Formats: sequence, C-alpha cells, structure tokens
Amino acid sequence: MEKPVTALWPTIKYTGNGRQELEDEIVTEYPLTIRLDREEFATMVCTPTDLEELVLGFLASEGIIRSLSELRSMRIEESRGIAEVELVNKQNTAKEWVNKRFIGSCCGKSRQFYFHNDARTAKTIPAGGAVLTAAQCLELMRGLQQSSPEFQSTGGVHNAALCSADQLLIVRTDIGRHNALDKIYGCCIRHSIPLKGKVIAFSGRVSSEVLLKAAKIGAAVLLSKSAPTELALQLAEELGITVAGFIRGQSFNVYTHPERIQGLSGPGPT
Amino acid sequence: MEKPVTALWPTIKYTGNGRQELEDEIVTEYPLTIRLDREEFATMVCTPTDLEELVLGFLASEGIIRSLSELRSMRIEESRGIAEVELVNKQNTAKEWVNKRFIGSCCGKSRQFYFHNDARTAKTIPAGGAVLTAAQCLELMRGLQQSSPEFQSTGGVHNAALCSADQLLIVRTDIGRHNALDKIYGCCIRHSIPLKGKVIAFSGRVSSEVLLKAAKIGAAVLLSKSAPTELALQLAEELGITVAGFIRGQSFNVYTHPERIQGLSGPGPT
Repeated sequence: MEKPVTALWPTIKYTGNGRQELEDEIVTEYPLTIRLDREEFATMVCTPTDLEELVLGFLASEGIIRSLSELRSMRIEESRGIAEVELVNKQNTAKEWVNKRFIGSCCGKSRQFYFHNDARTAKTIPAGGAVLTAAQCLELMRGLQQSSPEFQSTGGVHNAALCSADQLLIVRTDIGRHNALDKIYGCCIRHSIPLKGKVIAFSGRVSSEVLLKAAKIGAAVLLSKSAPTELALQLAEELGITVAGFIRGQSFNVYTHPERIQGLSGPGPT
Repeated sequence: MEKPVTALWPTIKYTGNGRQELEDEIVTEYPLTIRLDREEFATMVCTPTDLEELVLGFLASEGIIRSLSELRSMRIEESRGIAEVELVNKQNTAKEWVNKRFIGSCCGKSRQFYFHNDARTAKTIPAGGAVLTAAQCLELMRGLQQSSPEFQSTGGVHNAALCSADQLLIVRTDIGRHNALDKIYGCCIRHSIPLKGKVIAFSGRVSSEVLLKAAKIGAAVLLSKSAPTELALQLAEELGITVAGFIRGQSFNVYTHPERIQGLSGPGPT
C-alpha cells in the first residue's frame, strides 16, 4: 500500500481579524534507509513516491552504480522504510573514501570539486549549438509550476523535470530538493533515456550540489526558478552546462554557456 | 582574511523585449571540512560567515559536544576550508552509531525519531503559558526578512534568528537552511545564552530535520515563513514545541501548542 503524500492537520489560522480552526493540507515526510548488501548505507527523508527511482538515482549519484545491470536486486519495504539493495559486485569503494574531501587538482579536474566521487562521476557536457529558445525556457518553467497541483496547496515540495525543448518528459516531486533530482536520475537509468540535448527544469536554488547532480545525470541545460551560487556557476562553466535562473513571468538570467539558448549569446551573428 | 559572501558574475538578462548584459550579484558557497581529533568528520558547503559558531552548532547538533568546555581547541583555516577541532575527551561515540537508524520505541521516546543521536539530544520543552502575541509573530518575521539587505539582492540564502517576544537577538544567514540554524546554536553555546521563553524565526520550510534542530537548541516556539511537513509537526507535538508557518503579511497558521501565542488557543477563557 502506497503511503499518502499529504495529510490533514488541525490548524488555527490567524488573519488579523481573528482566528479560525481548519484542517490544513500538509505534505508528508518519511525516513527511508538504504541497506547495501545488508549493511546500513544511508538514511534520507523523502516524499513517499517513486522510491525505487529515488534509490537508483541516489546510488548512481553517490557513484555506487552506473547502470541497472550493476544491481542484483532491490526490495522496498515501505511499512518499515527500508530499501534492501544487493549489488552484482560487492561494493569495492569504501564509503569512507567516497565522501572524503577532495583537495588539490590532480586527475585533471578542477579544484572546485570537493568530493572524490563527484570528480569521478560528474560528466562534462560536449559543446554544442542551441538546444532551445528563450520562449521555451519560460514555457518549460511554467509547465513545471503547473505540473503538481496536489502539492501547490501545501507549498512544501520541490519539483524537477526532465524536458525536451518543447515539453516536460518526466516530472518528479519531493520535499528534498536533491531527492527530486535523484528520482529523475533513477528514472533515466531505469528506462535508459538518452540525455543528449535534454534539459532539467528545477524549482529550487542551484547550489553546487544541485549542479553536480545535473552534471551526473548528463543534462546540458539546467533551468531554475531561483538563484544560483557562485560555486555552482564555476562548476557549470567548467563542465559545459548552461545555467539559467530566476525564470519568472517573462524574464530570466543566463549565467553560463548562453550559446545553447537561441538568440541569447550576442546581438551579432554567432 | 574573511572570504566574500557575494560575488559579481557576468550575466545575460532576458526580458521578452530583448537581452541585456550585466553583472549580477551572486551568493558565494564554500566547502568546509571539519576534522575531529585529526580525522575527517564531515564536509559541508556554507556561506563563509560565523564559521566557528557553525562548527560549534554542528557538533552540538550531531551530539558530539554539549558545551564549550568539551572543546580543547578549534582552529579554522579559511583559505583551505578546514576546521581542526580537538575534544577534551576523545570522541566516545563512534560516528557510525551516531547516524544509525533508530527503529522502535525503546528509551521512552517516540518512534518518530529515526536517528539515535536525535533521540538522545532533542530536548522536550516544558509546558508553559503565552510567550508572545500574534502581532509579535508577524513583527518578528517582518524583522527577519529585513535583517539581511545584502542578501535580499541575491535571493539565495536562508535566515534564522533567535528572538525574544519583541526583538531579534541574533540573526544568522547561510545558503544552507541547516547551517543558518547551526550558527544560531553555536552562538547560544558560545555565549551561554539562556533559551527559556525564546523564539526561533526561520525563513525556510520546517522539515523534521529543522524541527529537531530547534528542539536541540531548546527554543519553545518556531516561526516560519514557509510550510511544515507532517513528520515535523508530529515531532513538535511530542516535544512540546509551538510551530507557526506561512507567516506572511497579516496572517499565519499555528499547527502545534497554540497556548504559547496569546489569544490563539481558543475563543473562550483559557
């Protein structure tokens, strides 16, 4: 039985003119513990949808797996909040090492990377021409906002979508920004979706961690309703990813690799 | 030398009518690795302000220290992004255990807790009468929003404040929601600030993790501009914390323990 994604909660609403008792719709949140070859690996809190994709995407993002074929089995016990995962080859990367700080600029990648597994798994996107138009950027973000009406009332979740230039292909929702992206990643892995020329639209801020997730998924363009950080933009510059932020109403900002958005890179011929 | 908290980034702004090149103000983000007795303990990304308080609050929140006296020394090497911490007593809680999933309801606390160290360190707040009025809730949140003008332009950070009923006492800012609260916690520990009757005002959503941070700090009231999750409210109910959300303009919602907000708990005499 699937767990509910929202719940009603007895609430007192204050409005200046007085108080009112009502049942407010609240987003739920569940702990999910991933056990890897019978050892506890990580516990996350999440919205209880698309849990297999969440686990797949999380493991790929952590550099534990690269494809579905590396997985022997996965069993989600929703009532206990446990995902039991068995790998084909026992994990040969000690967890301690995966999250060890990466300092210095060996192995040809930037010193902007601060974890070994990020330097190992983040993909550099090949240079290329326009993927979409400015109007399509606005349209995709509008579509993302309208895509999960059941959550608009709660105001408590983030949305992420994998898109082509003219439509949302997969939309995933979670209380955790990272989880929403991991669910997208897991879906791409499960269905072997080709990422060439694809776009990610995202409701949250673009921190370095969010940018690295997009890089691991392999999307060329990351669209956000919100603000980026400088470290995220430095990584985007280096990894060849186009980042546009503050996509609201009729305007937005392009911070890196504007050549993928048609007509944006300069007033003259390009 | 302190690192800058914002930076200028060459940006193309698209406005429907055309494009414009400008320098946009972007929030910075730095990795900080905490080394505990010379072993790597955790790496976080943060806004480079109040780093000692961030480390103190993070260690307290993780259950590693409870007071300043448990710390032998702390040295922040800002250029390398390293905090070297030595404890008076070598850490006797294995890190593996600290983050182990807590399942079941032994030791008298709720099965809502999912980590051992949370069940160990989250404080239950004693029942009590009104701490502040509805008008003060609105006023504190308005004050929080206006308290960091240098960040309002970037749109990329969260604010947290420790408050009395009628004023903001300490305001801290970070790109990470949790970091902003950890900075508050660290400041309270460093200056032995009494928490009785205090209020936390917070710009972000109230997830279970945010609620648990407030519980560890020991605040009786948590005010948020944004939405809570059901798990956060279940924990708040149990730990005796008043949670108010969606504090915007002239209205807000009270989800738990309304008795601490004067006049809110019922139309009749209380």
